[in-house]
Amino acid sequence: MTPFIAEILGTGLLILLGGGNVANEVLVGTKGYKTGWMSITTAWGLAVFAGVVVAGPHSGAHLNPAVTIGLALGGLFPWGEVPVYILGEFVGAMIGASLVYFMYKDHFDRTNNADLKRAVFCTSPAIPHTWRNMLSEILGTFVLLIAVFYFTEAEINDGSQTKVGLGSIGALPVAFIVWGIGLSLGGTTGYAINPARDLGPRIIHAILPIKNKTHSDWSYSWIPVTGPIIGAGIAAFLFLILGN
Amino acid sequence: MTPFIAEILGTGLLILLGGGNVANEVLVGTKGYKTGWMSITTAWGLAVFAGVVVAGPHSGAHLNPAVTIGLALGGLFPWGEVPVYILGEFVGAMIGASLVYFMYKDHFDRTNNADLKRAVFCTSPAIPHTWRNMLSEILGTFVLLIAVFYFTEAEINDGSQTKVGLGSIGALPVAFIVWGIGLSLGGTTGYAINPARDLGPRIIHAILPIKNKTHSDWSYSWIPVTGPIIGAGIAAFLFLILGN
Amino acid sequence: MTPFIAEILGTGLLILLGGGNVANEVLVGTKGYKTGWMSITTAWGLAVFAGVVVAGPHSGAHLNPAVTIGLALGGLFPWGEVPVYILGEFVGAMIGASLVYFMYKDHFDRTNNADLKRAVFCTSPAIPHTWRNMLSEILGTFVLLIAVFYFTEAEINDGSQTKVGLGSIGALPVAFIVWGIGLSLGGTTGYAINPARDLGPRIIHAILPIKNKTHSDWSYSWIPVTGPIIGAGIAAFLFLILGN
Amino acid sequence: MTPFIAEILGTGLLILLGGGNVANEVLVGTKGYKTGWMSITTAWGLAVFAGVVVAGPHSGAHLNPAVTIGLALGGLFPWGEVPVYILGEFVGAMIGASLVYFMYKDHFDRTNNADLKRAVFCTSPAIPHTWRNMLSEILGTFVLLIAVFYFTEAEINDGSQTKVGLGSIGALPVAFIVWGIGLSLGGTTGYAINPARDLGPRIIHAILPIKNKTHSDWSYSWIPVTGPIIGAGIAAFLFLILGN
Repeated sequence: MTPFIAEILGTGLLILLGGGNVANEVLVGTKGYKTGWMSITTAWGLAVFAGVVVAGPHSGAHLNPAVTIGLALGGLFPWGEVPVYILGEFVGAMIGASLVYFMYKDHFDRTNNADLKRAVFCTSPAIPHTWRNMLSEILGTFVLLIAVFYFTEAEINDGSQTKVGLGSIGALPVAFIVWGIGLSLGGTTGYAINPARDLGPRIIHAILPIKNKTHSDWSYSWIPVTGPIIGAGIAAFLFLILGN
Repeated sequence: MTPFIAEILGTGLLILLGGGNVANEVLVGTKGYKTGWMSITTAWGLAVFAGVVVAGPHSGAHLNPAVTIGLALGGLFPWGEVPVYILGEFVGAMIGASLVYFMYKDHFDRTNNADLKRAVFCTSPAIPHTWRNMLSEILGTFVLLIAVFYFTEAEINDGSQTKVGLGSIGALPVAFIVWGIGLSLGGTTGYAINPARDLGPRIIHAILPIKNKTHSDWSYSWIPVTGPIIGAGIAAFLFLILGN
Repeated sequence: MTPFIAEILGTGLLILLGGGNVANEVLVGTKGYKTGWMSITTAWGLAVFAGVVVAGPHSGAHLNPAVTIGLALGGLFPWGEVPVYILGEFVGAMIGASLVYFMYKDHFDRTNNADLKRAVFCTSPAIPHTWRNMLSEILGTFVLLIAVFYFTEAEINDGSQTKVGLGSIGALPVAFIVWGIGLSLGGTTGYAINPARDLGPRIIHAILPIKNKTHSDWSYSWIPVTGPIIGAGIAAFLFLILGN
Repeated sequence: MTPFIAEILGTGLLILLGGGNVANEVLVGTKGYKTGWMSITTAWGLAVFAGVVVAGPHSGAHLNPAVTIGLALGGLFPWGEVPVYILGEFVGAMIGASLVYFMYKDHFDRTNNADLKRAVFCTSPAIPHTWRNMLSEILGTFVLLIAVFYFTEAEINDGSQTKVGLGSIGALPVAFIVWGIGLSLGGTTGYAINPARDLGPRIIHAILPIKNKTHSDWSYSWIPVTGPIIGAGIAAFLFLILGN
């Protein structure tokens, strides 16, 4: 399996499970309807776990352009491979979001609230406020990356820039970190902390013929893309300053 | 302990704990009455954990005909042993479901809703739709198997086809995967993802003299049998195409 | 630290945390008031974790007469040490229950429901039924022991009968097993699955000058003592029959 | 990275995530509004996990003056380094609390209940009672320390007093212990169990220009400082008496 395929498969699993949980929470008639934030954050943590388990041995399981760029900024990943990783992450996210739609279609059709239907695909802020929402995404991704750097340096990075990212053994700790970020820092913007997780499914939301859907909120869409990249950059800067 | 006994014991624990939790959730007067979906999915994950811990060292803890067939399709398990494994899984599931009934009998007797009584034994779709329900079971089992292949190849398979499946060390990751599947992909059909888990207890539901019970919904019963096998087949196909 | 002291300390932690959680759930004015069954079962699992972490290296962390007797019946623990272990377990449980009372005393005083006050100390059946309640305790303890046998044989037992029980590494899996038992099999009797956990604090409930307390339900008290021992015996019998 | 920087970074993550979760729970309009005690305690456990992962390899991840003092009392940490550790812990806690405020500011502004706004920063007792509240903090910190001593002696302490505290491998077990303490012993005072976690953010609460804030409850503030230190001292005493 090439790293490109691994990123598609891993990010696909991430969004199939993560988005699938949101569908199970917000769409009418599901068995997990309105279970609550504890369940949503647990599911996203487990979605990361599944994605890292499968992709880890093949690509290092970035599953997130902010991770790819952050590792490259930190000198732990070659810039030349960045584009193919990011492409794989977006392709995977879009496939995953499409599968969620086809699986939960009967429940989409029964749900009247178009905002909740969109929430299955992409994030939206509880209180819109450009710079504060940006800060939320920066902080959430900073916490993710600062932890990922530690899992990476300890277990995968061999100094040759050929093996970078998370291995199977990093699946559990990174899942716990993502769980914690969701519980604690997800309250404002819904913690995209991953440009592919948010923008990929948002594009799918725009394309799919979802019954009675609303707009795809493009005016907000740039924040969960740029915020995570800035957060990853700050984490990389700190990593380089402080050493390991 | 032979693999046959181990599959009986492991699958029995799986259904005793998994079905027991549903009883604790839906039957009147229990201490966990209406705790919710988070609890149900956690319990099924832990039920898998218990089953794998006990059966893992002896049989590889398939506990699921879809796992047995999927591993065989992937070339990791000899076809000749498939029947005895599947038989053990069904016997175990039926014993486990019977124990749940005897243990929770007083609560069964106090519960009027016959659909909920049946839910302790087998799954039913939130919105009946043959092909969509099938898709749910395919996707859920695909995610389970694609992860199991990774735990298997990393830790148990020695290339001789004699030791295949999950060892004790695979108990925790597979439990997390099942937890995630439940939270995310269980919202439509209740995630049987295991023919023995669904059909075995369904047969017990038909046999036992449960007070004021309803029919055993045989018209739906083929979906949680065939869907998981198809999902396992797709995972095996992908595993063979992509290599490891 | 002698095994006797270790059993006191470990069982004390078990009851301080387990009983403390029940206090936090059922007593008026607490911060965790009515959080629910998911929280109660998680807390008891973590209580076992804490007790095993501390007592494991010194005594094998039985923390439960059913474990001590079950291991002895299975030939993994010398009968001569059984009495001192059981004594330590009861002393620890009684100290732990007393600490819970002193810590939560202001909340005890504000709670009118005397049944809930007693629930902080010991279990009571949701629907009283002697033999069915007994079956619940037998099944719960059987699941606990059958798993403990596996953790023990794999990691601690060296064949000399001198090191038996759980080490630090067994703390996490046994905690998960107890979590699962609670979610799934705790719905009927509240899963004592441990004579010291139930009878020790029940004695403390009888002794302490708790404001407006009810009787200590001695007529039920023998079930959570004998049920767990029978369940442990069945697990030991199965362990000896099936080998390892 | 020096231990001083590591304690700042680790304690900063602890409070950013822990305090962030309280904000997500109690402030109006958040996505996790009123999720409940299970979520709060899980989040604080994961906050400890994140802090220990990052600080563990550099400082031993005390993140808590009670841990620093307890380890020093137990002879496992040199007194000469105590002041710089405690300073780092307070600086980190104050930075973390400030970040929570800036991130959740729009939600602070919409929340009328000034007590809940303060709860994002520091603890307050459910029922004020000086010595009983003190006992709660003593017991909670005692449980934390008695477990930390075990993780430390097993994995970090090399006898030279130069490497003491928790390494990456201690992150998960200490997170579980903190989770359990919260569920079980947090019901009375909100389990500060850490002078820096409580006093540092309390000072920030006093300084920041929070809209419609109440007083910082200085009359209570000494209990979550002295209680944890006493609890740590008792644990250290027990550790020295009982040996390891």
